[in-house]
Amino acid sequence: MTKGSGCYYDRQEIRDPADREKSLFHALPGLLHHAIENTEYFARLLENIDPDTITSREALASLPVTRKNDLIQAQRGKPPLGGLTATAMSRLAHIYWSPGSLYDPEGTRNDYWRFARALFSAGVRQGDLVHNTFSYHMTPAGMMIDAAARSLGCPVFPAGTGQTDRQIEVIRDLRPKVFVGTPSFLLILFDRARELGVEIRSFEKALVSGEAFPAQTRDRLKYEHGIDAYQCYGTADAGLIAYESEAREGMVIDESLILEIAHPGTGTTVEPGEVGEIIVTLFNPDYPLIRYATGDLTRILPGESSCGRTNTRIAGWMGRTDQRTKVRGMFVDPEQIGRFSAEQQAIVRSRLVVTRKNGQDDILLRCEISPDFTDTRTKLLDSLRAEAQSALGLRCDIELVEAGGLPNDGKIVDDRRAVS
Amino acid sequence: MTKGSGCYYDRQEIRDPADREKSLFHALPGLLHHAIENTEYFARLLENIDPDTITSREALASLPVTRKNDLIQAQRGKPPLGGLTATAMSRLAHIYWSPGSLYDPEGTRNDYWRFARALFSAGVRQGDLVHNTFSYHMTPAGMMIDAAARSLGCPVFPAGTGQTDRQIEVIRDLRPKVFVGTPSFLLILFDRARELGVEIRSFEKALVSGEAFPAQTRDRLKYEHGIDAYQCYGTADAGLIAYESEAREGMVIDESLILEIAHPGTGTTVEPGEVGEIIVTLFNPDYPLIRYATGDLTRILPGESSCGRTNTRIAGWMGRTDQRTKVRGMFVDPEQIGRFSAEQQAIVRSRLVVTRKNGQDDILLRCEISPDFTDTRTKLLDSLRAEAQSALGLRCDIELVEAGGLPNDGKIVDDRRAVS
Repeated sequence: MTKGSGCYYDRQEIRDPADREKSLFHALPGLLHHAIENTEYFARLLENIDPDTITSREALASLPVTRKNDLIQAQRGKPPLGGLTATAMSRLAHIYWSPGSLYDPEGTRNDYWRFARALFSAGVRQGDLVHNTFSYHMTPAGMMIDAAARSLGCPVFPAGTGQTDRQIEVIRDLRPKVFVGTPSFLLILFDRARELGVEIRSFEKALVSGEAFPAQTRDRLKYEHGIDAYQCYGTADAGLIAYESEAREGMVIDESLILEIAHPGTGTTVEPGEVGEIIVTLFNPDYPLIRYATGDLTRILPGESSCGRTNTRIAGWMGRTDQRTKVRGMFVDPEQIGRFSAEQQAIVRSRLVVTRKNGQDDILLRCEISPDFTDTRTKLLDSLRAEAQSALGLRCDIELVEAGGLPNDGKIVDDRRAVS
Repeated sequence: MTKGSGCYYDRQEIRDPADREKSLFHALPGLLHHAIENTEYFARLLENIDPDTITSREALASLPVTRKNDLIQAQRGKPPLGGLTATAMSRLAHIYWSPGSLYDPEGTRNDYWRFARALFSAGVRQGDLVHNTFSYHMTPAGMMIDAAARSLGCPVFPAGTGQTDRQIEVIRDLRPKVFVGTPSFLLILFDRARELGVEIRSFEKALVSGEAFPAQTRDRLKYEHGIDAYQCYGTADAGLIAYESEAREGMVIDESLILEIAHPGTGTTVEPGEVGEIIVTLFNPDYPLIRYATGDLTRILPGESSCGRTNTRIAGWMGRTDQRTKVRGMFVDPEQIGRFSAEQQAIVRSRLVVTRKNGQDDILLRCEISPDFTDTRTKLLDSLRAEAQSALGLRCDIELVEAGGLPNDGKIVDDRRAVS
């Protein structure tokens, strides 16, 4: 695609970056006024702020951050929605539940969570049938994609999670062009279809999210299955934050928010290119979030994308602020473990346990093994030990765990040094 | 409520019945033209019909019926949608899967499945938070209610199926006014909340469906929990077919269809009041269904509802045409078994197995027992044997089955005489 060829979701994506910056910071005081006047939470948090003076990145960086735990505490203090929404509960479209028992409001706007931009960038076009494997129950994930696809004029098959064999039957029959879900579930569908002797060949495009998406998985999808898969990054509170384009150079930031990268825990801006926590300020009239600290790590990429989109790019998800850890002087990011697990066919998931033994850091990589591989444990142990050392740059012991043996709680680095 | 007090979803509900009949049969030739001109299936099925002559119940009854199996065969013959839809797949909103591998199309109209009328009749009003426990995955059930609630201006919590303990936490926190789901799941929520010591008291209204709803369950919800629960009847192909009103006299037929009651298997109209199969003709421009035989049994109630709604009423679901059976000269309907199971606290679900032994019909009622009751098996066997005999009017043996021991496939009467 040539720059300016028109293959963009809207013209906002190709604005002069200076115009975008000006436009966002021109709108920011209005957002702050709205949040202060219509939500109890921000009225209190920003009571000594003059919104009209917050018109630059420096000024924004002086405001306090809000973390997921602050939202949870606000909701516990003033149930059910914590005085966080500018729209009455009775005028919302949906309310969802997130882990930690946070309730996420959804307003009635078309494509409320803004994932249409990410689907479009992944090549999804009007009339494409979308096979959506995110859950619609409790969590907003399923509906985020559902509403976005329908706003593009795409019909959706709401597959949800699980029921793998039935999903394969449905894919064979309906021949959807588009897969949406986690990359690992897409690979599970292909592996299981092969076991069943069913050919599923209709997918041409995929939007994936919810876990690391290493280049090796991307290539396997492209060369084994003919699928162009793009990733995006978002949260249950904020919706879409950034999305990949065909340039494959990091992820482009969405147009409806201001993104900062801050030193975890402090909220102060990092140097350009330095890894830090993603903080977003969201232009959402129903649920304005001012300096919402996501707990996710990334860094800003320099320059502009070759796809022609002019917004700043981030490197993609680089782990959680609360799981990144230092072992024997080396940083270990959950992303590294995630990529290692994804690259090893034998591994379903793994978890790094960090302890202190004889005054030294000790690490054990617990690997949940796919049932297909249980017959080659000794050989597997040796090969995984070598691979892990090369992937992490650290010598570590491997423990093989039966399928289902690791808790599926999203924890990848289990740092027990503080308590042991 | 007084007749004509205005508590109706729309004025169609209180039309002069003669006007409704005239209006439906005035529109019928147009529906037939549309179906013949825009769907391959009805073009073939009705090729020798002159639509302009089909302007009465007698004329309609002369047309061939279409069964679920016909839809399945049409879809297998011409995948994926069988030449049944007048709207191209690329212009639909959703496609769903139903047991038997039937794919149900959903168009983009607001409240496509027409359940808003049933929610309104159950007392649901703008701004009420709806806790929706139907599944959104694969099946249209969840979205049928979701879209209907939002069209009334009600926010929805998409709970889906399962995760009972988490649902109780959510209900405690969000205090929804409205429950939607099966009556048995609502009772499970209350029983489990009591075990957990959590008070859930916010529900005031419920719309229930998907299984029998005996008066005893209705009363328990009303007097123990203060909930006015109303039932409705619909299918994954047709959407809403009939709904209960506060008159509690059967179910009022929806305004967008013509309903006939026919002798199962023949399609010929039964005498007024006689039990037969529900056949619907649906004014749905995306998916016109002409004389769709549902396989569900009911009968027409005489007269008009005291609530002021003037449409014909049906008695509610009386079982499946393919499961109703005759044992020792007596009809046994799945509904009888369902009601018996619902009335016995010890029973989760049960299934009647009918065989031939020594030239005689032999029946065994297999009862899946709630874990709470396993310690009193002998006493339980005696009491269930007596209760079953009184409920079915037939002597039968009882077999107690552990929780989860019966297949959850909707089969209630398992007639093995043909094969044994």
